Amino acid sequence: MGKGRLEAFSDGVLAIIITIMVLEMKVPHAGAHGEGGHGPGLADLLPIFPVFLSYLLSFIYLGIYWNNHHHMMHTVTRVTGGVLWANLHLLFWLSLVPFVTGWMGENDFAPVPTAVYGVVLLLSALAYYVLQTVIIRSQGKDSLLAKAVGSDWKGRLSPLLYVAAIVAAPFLPWVALALYVLVAVVWLVPDRRIERVIAPD
Amino acid sequence: MGKGRLEAFSDGVLAIIITIMVLEMKVPHAGAHGEGGHGPGLADLLPIFPVFLSYLLSFIYLGIYWNNHHHMMHTVTRVTGGVLWANLHLLFWLSLVPFVTGWMGENDFAPVPTAVYGVVLLLSALAYYVLQTVIIRSQGKDSLLAKAVGSDWKGRLSPLLYVAAIVAAPFLPWVALALYVLVAVVWLVPDRRIERVIAPD
Amino acid sequence: MGKGRLEAFSDGVLAIIITIMVLEMKVPHAGAHGEGGHGPGLADLLPIFPVFLSYLLSFIYLGIYWNNHHHMMHTVTRVTGGVLWANLHLLFWLSLVPFVTGWMGENDFAPVPTAVYGVVLLLSALAYYVLQTVIIRSQGKDSLLAKAVGSDWKGRLSPLLYVAAIVAAPFLPWVALALYVLVAVVWLVPDRRIERVIAPD
Amino acid sequence: MGKGRLEAFSDGVLAIIITIMVLEMKVPHAGAHGEGGHGPGLADLLPIFPVFLSYLLSFIYLGIYWNNHHHMMHTVTRVTGGVLWANLHLLFWLSLVPFVTGWMGENDFAPVPTAVYGVVLLLSALAYYVLQTVIIRSQGKDSLLAKAVGSDWKGRLSPLLYVAAIVAAPFLPWVALALYVLVAVVWLVPDRRIERVIAPD
Repeated sequence: MGKGRLEAFSDGVLAIIITIMVLEMKVPHAGAHGEGGHGPGLADLLPIFPVFLSYLLSFIYLGIYWNNHHHMMHTVTRVTGGVLWANLHLLFWLSLVPFVTGWMGENDFAPVPTAVYGVVLLLSALAYYVLQTVIIRSQGKDSLLAKAVGSDWKGRLSPLLYVAAIVAAPFLPWVALALYVLVAVVWLVPDRRIERVIAPD
Repeated sequence: MGKGRLEAFSDGVLAIIITIMVLEMKVPHAGAHGEGGHGPGLADLLPIFPVFLSYLLSFIYLGIYWNNHHHMMHTVTRVTGGVLWANLHLLFWLSLVPFVTGWMGENDFAPVPTAVYGVVLLLSALAYYVLQTVIIRSQGKDSLLAKAVGSDWKGRLSPLLYVAAIVAAPFLPWVALALYVLVAVVWLVPDRRIERVIAPD
Repeated sequence: MGKGRLEAFSDGVLAIIITIMVLEMKVPHAGAHGEGGHGPGLADLLPIFPVFLSYLLSFIYLGIYWNNHHHMMHTVTRVTGGVLWANLHLLFWLSLVPFVTGWMGENDFAPVPTAVYGVVLLLSALAYYVLQTVIIRSQGKDSLLAKAVGSDWKGRLSPLLYVAAIVAAPFLPWVALALYVLVAVVWLVPDRRIERVIAPD
Repeated sequence: MGKGRLEAFSDGVLAIIITIMVLEMKVPHAGAHGEGGHGPGLADLLPIFPVFLSYLLSFIYLGIYWNNHHHMMHTVTRVTGGVLWANLHLLFWLSLVPFVTGWMGENDFAPVPTAVYGVVLLLSALAYYVLQTVIIRSQGKDSLLAKAVGSDWKGRLSPLLYVAAIVAAPFLPWVALALYVLVAVVWLVPDRRIERVIAPD
């Protein structure tokens, strides 16, 4: 079975997830119910600013996932049922990102929403790890992806930082947020491991 | 006429259906109308939990449909007008899944919404069967798909279980729900019939 | 310039239009504002029924457009700037279909919304005609599409029926609706003209 | 790394952005809360007219971006990490267009929303310029895109006009709007530069 449709479907879902998040940024109304009142001033943008920041953070996270998914799929030669479902499992957790992004942003990074945001990031990271493992197993030994991933320090570090952020969020939500930004920065550095191994092709 | 655009369009619609369902999970507001009040506590997630469960169930169903659609299209060699419209007919019923999912979840699996959820699943299953039949007819005898489908016990069993669930829902909604979960589990076991027949290619 | 990306973009927009229409079917709430009240009864579905009917009609229309667009693009050999913009022009009018569908359905096929629905269908049909003409011109004489379209009685009849429906809607909205259904039925009969001309390929 | 998936992902995001904008055009309700009241008259469309105009303007802008993105990607031969992220950066700013479009339209082109609309257009234009520069650098000297872009007077003029519009908006919002329309008209003239250079292929 070809991987073309798997990539196309994943791209479609990721493109929709990354775009519908912006719908959480509601056009401001002075009267909240649109009772004649509108929100045409700069001050009306202020309450949306935290939503904008959380949107920016999640946009970067989803960009990283799309980017890494893109690289990982390059190494896939056969798509098994296990790969299909591990991929859907990853998309499921990522599909919850817009919800927790909106919740965290609308509540100005309050403790509980900030912790729940981390839980969704953690479960997405674990789902990514499961997908990676399923692909490596389907490739047998001498797996191209296994070589490319190597020690995978980023993949091992991120869940630890997410757990630290989830634990910190109820007391110090801004520390949790700083950890989320840190993980994003760590991953933003482009992942040259797979490019290096594939290069000779 | 090629089947590439048919697959791409179906993938697009399925990707959108599976993703907009998450929009039914509304970001919680303590004040219901956003009158200054927000919903930043863990307790605010509680009323969303049934919506989350129904989302999870429908996500798995749509994943199964995408998966099986993927397999079935592998056997298609020519796309007739009948195949195009049978495919759109299937997409129509599947497009109602987010609506019934949200309705069932927001009402904590109340009898009527749970029954209506089953009606949409039943009509989707029948639409899938119609599409399968149209494809087999368009392939003439010695149809590859006909061989792959074989006795099709899953395809015959599911509608019966849906009907049982619809009948049970007004009295025992949790029995209906258990039947929906059962059908999903039956289909989650990957469908090796088509892979088996195609394998020699 | 290849036509692959033009088809992919059009498919994407059409898939999104056809799917977001279902968002106009709002999950019913007994209390309208979600004030504890829900809408778990069969009676709660009644007010949604006209929305469902208008959704069904528009789904069929968009299916017909996708189908015919699919056929027409088969005859395109080079994509000029004019073709790109004529295509976007068509997508613009089709993108208004969900809005007028929701408006017509929520108002139980009231005169004005039913007339405005016809206006959008009319402008979409004219945009389709413009796209067809631009493609034929870009192909020079001996245009494959010109031969395939032939006398184009469907393309000439539809706008007349839309105009009749728009005129009738303020007085007899159900006559207008019947005319919309009639046009859909006329087009549902698969367009074999292009298949006939292309067949020898 | 191939550019196919980059194009497909960008097309997906642009198709979604261009289509969800129409969701800002809310189906009119006489009673604002749907309390039995509906909005079935022509007069109910009047308040939506500015939203329609701003939607039309943004649709054209996104069409131009898609069109030019399409042309630019034709010249790309290798996709580096820098190109991927410069592309995501462009999509980020474009994803804010539906928000500012809705805000400007719902407030009848009030000064502040009209200025903020210009800010998003300006940042999108700068992001496009960054993407163009990253691609040219990745191609080394003798860059095909560098030749095609040439003096790039449109790319240089647009930001100046956006800045002028942003400055004018607080005092003369209609002047700002006229400038946005002017920039759109300038770009609507198809960009033959790239076609001219690529033509010999």
